[in-house]
Amino acid sequence: MWRNERYESVPLDVKGIDEDNSKGTRDSLHPQTLRKTRQSEERPKDSNLWPYFQDGLRRIDYVLTYHVQKPHSARKQKSRSCCLSRGRNRTSSPARDDPELAAQEQRLDYHEDDMRLRRDEFEENLREMGLEIEKEEGTKIPGVGFVKIHAPWEVLCREAEFMKLKMPTIKKYEVSHGSGITEKVNMFMQKVTAPLQPKVVDSRTENEKHLSYAFSREKRHLFDLSDRNSFFNSKTRSSIVYEILKRTKCTRAKYVMGISSLLGSGVYTDAYPLHDGDIDGELAETNDRKILYEEWASYSIFYKYQPIGLIRKYFGEKVGLYFAWLGVYTQMLIPAAVVGVIVFLYGCATVDDNIPSNEICDERNNITMCPMCDRACSYWKLVTACGTARASHLFDNAATVFFAIFMALWATMFMEHWKRRQMRLNYVWDMTGFEDTESHPRAEYEFHVMKKSLKKEQSPKAGNVKLTCTDRMPAYMTIIVMMIFLIFVTLVIVFGVVLYRVSIMTALHMSSTPTFRTNIRATVKTTGAVINLIIIIIMDEVYGAIARWLTIMEVPKTDKSFEERLIFKTFILKFANAFTPIVYLAFFRGRLIGRPGKYIYVLGSYRMEECAHAGCLMELCIQLCITMLGKQLIQNNLFEIGVPKLKKLLRRRKIDKKHQEELNKTLHRHEKDHFLGPFVGLNPEYMEMIIQFGMVTLFVASFPLAPLFALLNNIIEIRLDAKKFVTELRRPIAVRAKDIGIWYTLLRGLSKVAVIVNAFVISFTSDFIPRLVYQYMYSPDGTLHGFVNHTLSYFNVSHFQPGTEPLQPLHLGYRVDVCRYKDYRDPPWSDTPYEFSREFWAILAARFAFVIVFQNVVMLMSDFVDWLIPDIPKDISVQIHKERNLIVELFMKEERGKKHRNTIGDPSPQPLRSRPSSQA
Amino acid sequence: MWRNERYESVPLDVKGIDEDNSKGTRDSLHPQTLRKTRQSEERPKDSNLWPYFQDGLRRIDYVLTYHVQKPHSARKQKSRSCCLSRGRNRTSSPARDDPELAAQEQRLDYHEDDMRLRRDEFEENLREMGLEIEKEEGTKIPGVGFVKIHAPWEVLCREAEFMKLKMPTIKKYEVSHGSGITEKVNMFMQKVTAPLQPKVVDSRTENEKHLSYAFSREKRHLFDLSDRNSFFNSKTRSSIVYEILKRTKCTRAKYVMGISSLLGSGVYTDAYPLHDGDIDGELAETNDRKILYEEWASYSIFYKYQPIGLIRKYFGEKVGLYFAWLGVYTQMLIPAAVVGVIVFLYGCATVDDNIPSNEICDERNNITMCPMCDRACSYWKLVTACGTARASHLFDNAATVFFAIFMALWATMFMEHWKRRQMRLNYVWDMTGFEDTESHPRAEYEFHVMKKSLKKEQSPKAGNVKLTCTDRMPAYMTIIVMMIFLIFVTLVIVFGVVLYRVSIMTALHMSSTPTFRTNIRATVKTTGAVINLIIIIIMDEVYGAIARWLTIMEVPKTDKSFEERLIFKTFILKFANAFTPIVYLAFFRGRLIGRPGKYIYVLGSYRMEECAHAGCLMELCIQLCITMLGKQLIQNNLFEIGVPKLKKLLRRRKIDKKHQEELNKTLHRHEKDHFLGPFVGLNPEYMEMIIQFGMVTLFVASFPLAPLFALLNNIIEIRLDAKKFVTELRRPIAVRAKDIGIWYTLLRGLSKVAVIVNAFVISFTSDFIPRLVYQYMYSPDGTLHGFVNHTLSYFNVSHFQPGTEPLQPLHLGYRVDVCRYKDYRDPPWSDTPYEFSREFWAILAARFAFVIVFQNVVMLMSDFVDWLIPDIPKDISVQIHKERNLIVELFMKEERGKKHRNTIGDPSPQPLRSRPSSQA
Repeated sequence: MWRNERYESVPLDVKGIDEDNSKGTRDSLHPQTLRKTRQSEERPKDSNLWPYFQDGLRRIDYVLTYHVQKPHSARKQKSRSCCLSRGRNRTSSPARDDPELAAQEQRLDYHEDDMRLRRDEFEENLREMGLEIEKEEGTKIPGVGFVKIHAPWEVLCREAEFMKLKMPTIKKYEVSHGSGITEKVNMFMQKVTAPLQPKVVDSRTENEKHLSYAFSREKRHLFDLSDRNSFFNSKTRSSIVYEILKRTKCTRAKYVMGISSLLGSGVYTDAYPLHDGDIDGELAETNDRKILYEEWASYSIFYKYQPIGLIRKYFGEKVGLYFAWLGVYTQMLIPAAVVGVIVFLYGCATVDDNIPSNEICDERNNITMCPMCDRACSYWKLVTACGTARASHLFDNAATVFFAIFMALWATMFMEHWKRRQMRLNYVWDMTGFEDTESHPRAEYEFHVMKKSLKKEQSPKAGNVKLTCTDRMPAYMTIIVMMIFLIFVTLVIVFGVVLYRVSIMTALHMSSTPTFRTNIRATVKTTGAVINLIIIIIMDEVYGAIARWLTIMEVPKTDKSFEERLIFKTFILKFANAFTPIVYLAFFRGRLIGRPGKYIYVLGSYRMEECAHAGCLMELCIQLCITMLGKQLIQNNLFEIGVPKLKKLLRRRKIDKKHQEELNKTLHRHEKDHFLGPFVGLNPEYMEMIIQFGMVTLFVASFPLAPLFALLNNIIEIRLDAKKFVTELRRPIAVRAKDIGIWYTLLRGLSKVAVIVNAFVISFTSDFIPRLVYQYMYSPDGTLHGFVNHTLSYFNVSHFQPGTEPLQPLHLGYRVDVCRYKDYRDPPWSDTPYEFSREFWAILAARFAFVIVFQNVVMLMSDFVDWLIPDIPKDISVQIHKERNLIVELFMKEERGKKHRNTIGDPSPQPLRSRPSSQA
Repeated sequence: MWRNERYESVPLDVKGIDEDNSKGTRDSLHPQTLRKTRQSEERPKDSNLWPYFQDGLRRIDYVLTYHVQKPHSARKQKSRSCCLSRGRNRTSSPARDDPELAAQEQRLDYHEDDMRLRRDEFEENLREMGLEIEKEEGTKIPGVGFVKIHAPWEVLCREAEFMKLKMPTIKKYEVSHGSGITEKVNMFMQKVTAPLQPKVVDSRTENEKHLSYAFSREKRHLFDLSDRNSFFNSKTRSSIVYEILKRTKCTRAKYVMGISSLLGSGVYTDAYPLHDGDIDGELAETNDRKILYEEWASYSIFYKYQPIGLIRKYFGEKVGLYFAWLGVYTQMLIPAAVVGVIVFLYGCATVDDNIPSNEICDERNNITMCPMCDRACSYWKLVTACGTARASHLFDNAATVFFAIFMALWATMFMEHWKRRQMRLNYVWDMTGFEDTESHPRAEYEFHVMKKSLKKEQSPKAGNVKLTCTDRMPAYMTIIVMMIFLIFVTLVIVFGVVLYRVSIMTALHMSSTPTFRTNIRATVKTTGAVINLIIIIIMDEVYGAIARWLTIMEVPKTDKSFEERLIFKTFILKFANAFTPIVYLAFFRGRLIGRPGKYIYVLGSYRMEECAHAGCLMELCIQLCITMLGKQLIQNNLFEIGVPKLKKLLRRRKIDKKHQEELNKTLHRHEKDHFLGPFVGLNPEYMEMIIQFGMVTLFVASFPLAPLFALLNNIIEIRLDAKKFVTELRRPIAVRAKDIGIWYTLLRGLSKVAVIVNAFVISFTSDFIPRLVYQYMYSPDGTLHGFVNHTLSYFNVSHFQPGTEPLQPLHLGYRVDVCRYKDYRDPPWSDTPYEFSREFWAILAARFAFVIVFQNVVMLMSDFVDWLIPDIPKDISVQIHKERNLIVELFMKEERGKKHRNTIGDPSPQPLRSRPSSQA
């Protein structure tokens, strides 16, 4: 095994000194001292596989990898150090002998050398910061060099102090669980939910909590430093190292700071912390990853709570918050799904009592309707629409309005519940008081700034160059044009599908085969929806790629702003993509058809689509159903399970098959992790959920089963994501976060839009308002009897435009003089034939009034709920207050102790040094 | 001068030691050391008047006062210390000789003794905490004892560390003012606004800022401690003392913690920090108070910016934020006022081109209107309504809609602008990272808890008693009932005023004097509005008192929750009080009148009020104008200037007149401040402004001059409040705050409500929608010609209910068969006479549609503006990031220095002790 002696950070003589005075001045635990501590613990059998340096003592906290394209030249300089690497010459040989490639090679060589110099400087700087480094080049995995980084105790302490990490102190205090009734309820709930709790030590029932305080070396006596190895856990260690990596400069790359720019310019290929251990295999040591695998990432325990504390401990706060959010969302979907199912069942139960559909199905009414299409279609009897009328009652009944209001309040409750949960987690995770800082500029940004400053080298203030609006204007313009174009594309696609349906419909109508005819509507609807679905899924990927490309073009300054801009663009595009067909169905289909004798035609001769007699709600429902189910099934199965598997397979394929098996067994932790997929952020996960949230809330008035579908999907989704995080991906860098950031804003925005959309769905898409108006204004007996007749206007067949009258006017067996159509217009015999009637305007006013009332009442109720539920749970705010008092008390006690010691002549305490290191 | 030796906190021998080793172990600056420092500065001539202890050295940081009801008995115990007090026996003599009062006296005596014991214990505890105390009883002001508190350096440092006060460090850095254009614009703006800047040293132009860091004794080398007297300014010192006062226990009063409960139970009567100095008088030392008086609290500099930095330095962040907010609000009112005036002028300019009012004024149209009241009134010609029609065009024109949208966006801009300003102030004031903590329970709350725990002494867990919902239920019920009742009272009052108007109107109509008749409408409108105004002002005070009473009954736990609940109740009541008459005018008046032949009557025979022909907008406008002007003038002049003056006079009256003059000259600072009014919080100020904000935004569509009135008022208001704070009130305790708290929520709520209210005002109160509908649907030539005729329906006079037809049907000189009235109803000759016509429903639908469009478009635009403007100004976020990096850099440098010193054998630094105290 190859090891670079040069990177041994601590000179041996210093070590010798250290060994002599273990109570000495230096606080870091050096290898030798460490060994002593560790020897008492049981050691893993095969220490090779553990994430330690070659000495088996210093933990690898972080790994950087780089390309070793030409091991021969790269290793020339470093020939001093040799050389147990087994397969290192295997891949590098082909490039050497080809004469054509020689020049190119030289260029590459220069490039390679430059890279190496930068690496050397960067690593030198890292060691300057106190990190310890071990290098390993192309041992088992050819072409890849590893830089293993270890942060010694001293560095950890220093950085923890800078980062103001809150760490648990020795001082414990009792957590009050509320008094009397609250406590009893809590106890009861705990007992009931006990079987639902995952089996992890981090239990929620503990009654004591360690007081936390921002770590500071001067206050080290507050902390329990008896086990320095576990005081900072692996997640904290890696995030500390990452903090240093971000900050460390590499002057060779001018204007460029930190690891992100080095990654950006390809000096390093990857940077990742290591997983804690294996999830399976013979070596059955317990580690957090394994516990997570068993108690979280398994479908068999889908009914259990997630071990959020452990997830956070292992992956950091940001990932922890995502899963906590997903958990809360899924949990909140349960009541929504139950109510949704009840509403649906209510529809089923009342379908026989529904007067309008009974009237439609009643043969005796004998209403003759105007033809559905020009020429080919003929008059038809309303009774044939009986089936759809009955079906649409399932989704269009009085309970729907209730459900829409319920879901609007549900959304508010969900947001509130999440805010509280987030606050609670912040408290439990000691994140209160954490402030997110603006991060360093991105590599691309600095590259552009550099280019710009090179251009205006003459100007005196070259140091203070930044990208202004003027520089970004071309990018902004492109973005705006592209976004508008893409949304236009979405609209065109929807219109295309409409045309497809219209033309197919016409074609089918013209065919004389009767079996065709009967299945016409169903066929067209279903194929239309499926085509829509396929287009949505394809365009989803396309739009995602375009959004990323546009954001890169924009050159945002920081990672945070990059992320936000990307999310924003992706959200708009994906949202438009998913919802345009639905919005068309809900609000435009069947509105712009004109009237018999004066239909509206598109592209010459196609009449616009009409809805079925009972309104478009039914079709909206089918579309929603297919989109939700299809999207979730296909995207989950294909993209989330299939593609990563495929990628992993491909990555492994690069290595010879035969060696793979044996390699697998002897691979080190950092090599194993190298084969895992890189962590690409939580955004795709969040995005998927947000679109789903949109489906659940936006058109819930038309599809009460949406929450149920979402619930079923999410139960799988949680475990799927868990599996991915635990087994498929490299360990993400633990990022501290107090909230879910922009996603909360998007959720809030969606739940606001949902109110108005649902108001419009109820008042315009469903027949709720016309029924209501009929019942209270026109009905002779206050019931819905006669409603169907009231909604139908009269048309005198002699007023057909020439050439549009049906070819078979006697299709029904009798001569038709007057046919009926669904609209509120004056009859042909009035003074103003075919004008909108007084009923039309009255119902329109009622529809609008309902929208206003619904929107404002629901918004008011939401705001009221928002106001009623405090953002910070009562017990948490009490607890935070208590903690603060405890800390002041602790310090006051300390002060007094100090004073006391002073007065009795004790030598003054020397907080920094005098603590006996025996405590450690 | 009487002085209690017992309260000399530092024993003399310790002082002696201190004097010997001024470089010794103790860090506090003791009187002797202090004297040395101070002697170099110039001393005030009459040090008596300065806020120092008797030794003239230790500053008084805080004063507590208490009653000395019976000096003879109270002083019996303390006879040891005597006795230069001049007027001390004057007030106490009457009580002694009366035999009847003896028993009562004894009881009082006991009570007094108890009080004294509590005081003694509390003060003992304070000294335990390190504070130094000097007592003074009834010297110049009889019956009042003063406890003067001084916080020595050591205590200040300790508490500053606990409170995590951010203090400026030695390290300076350059503040970048943006690059290129931004900088130039800034420079230009600074030059332009230079004459508007107040003349204070705290200038905004400085290019350097001291890096701030949370004060910590271990990091003391970071701070410039060369002048210990000015390192913590008087505001900080007093807030530190207040912090200790809040925390210090007094076990005699069980369960009771801190000064607030002692104040609550009357142990102390007052607690206040001292003003910095006099504002006038011969002793013309410059002090912050004087600067504030000259450069802020003066009407003559109304056009200048406020010295916000100095205000904050003197009064603390909370007061600073109030004035900053008021300043931003006033500043933002300028554009609103300008646009409002332009809109009004547009109305004036176009009044002659307005077709509808010209048609009304055109004698040739000769339209006969139905009578305005039963029997007494007769038919009238529309041309007589010419004046009001023309006047109402001033407020009801196309520009009004634009102005309503403008003001909705203005409100959003204002909120955004304030958020940014707040953020900037937070940065400048080093408040970033400050977290508001839950404060200690209120005295009343603890008293109630004590009572409850006494009741259930048997229960085992008496320690953990708190007020539960059950305990509070009676109070909650009372509050709900009272609130509903009070709102009902408001409605009744409004209805009463309506009845007054209706009855007066009828009475005046019946009188036959023609001069009366002509002035009827104007008289009734004006008297109605004035009565409304008077009621509003009276009820405002009543409701304020009731809200306070209700909140006290509720027994909220902390001061913060008390304040929030009080504000909430007061807001609801005062808001309902101020706006109910306006809402009635805008939306209900003239809607519920029925139609000719079928009028709606209230209380037997009173027909409901009708609006003038051109809509109610005119009357709404008059009402708003009178309310705004009257409320501001009366409340400002009477309540804000008059009442405090009166109170001050009364307080001074207690002392003999003749001595007053001479006393005035020799009074100490703490005695002078004792005569000032107590600071009662900012809530009344905020409340006044919020109601005004409501007036400005809610009905702005009907009264575009509202912003102008508000602007004029606020320019005065700022200086008025400033004068009050500087001269009339005791110095408030400096409270740290990051934002204006609940007020922001209320402002946000108001600006949301404003959108919907304005939408309704435009669509229902004004004639905007009917005009639009007429123009695009019914007008033969696309203009408004014929609009007046279109809005009038026909009534056949033979359909009058018996007994309601006019007594003088021939009043106009001809026989009337058909009269006209303003409504959209079918004519008598149609199939459905007097039913609402198709036009009615069409216009209603248009009105509702407009509300939906307006509300959602404006809300969307507001949200867009909100999203577009980042909450944290770009330069501030850059600055904060820079500061953070600088601090890490500073520490890293320090670390390296330390390491270096370690390696070259330098003795380890002892941060706590080794700093040479010569630095101080």
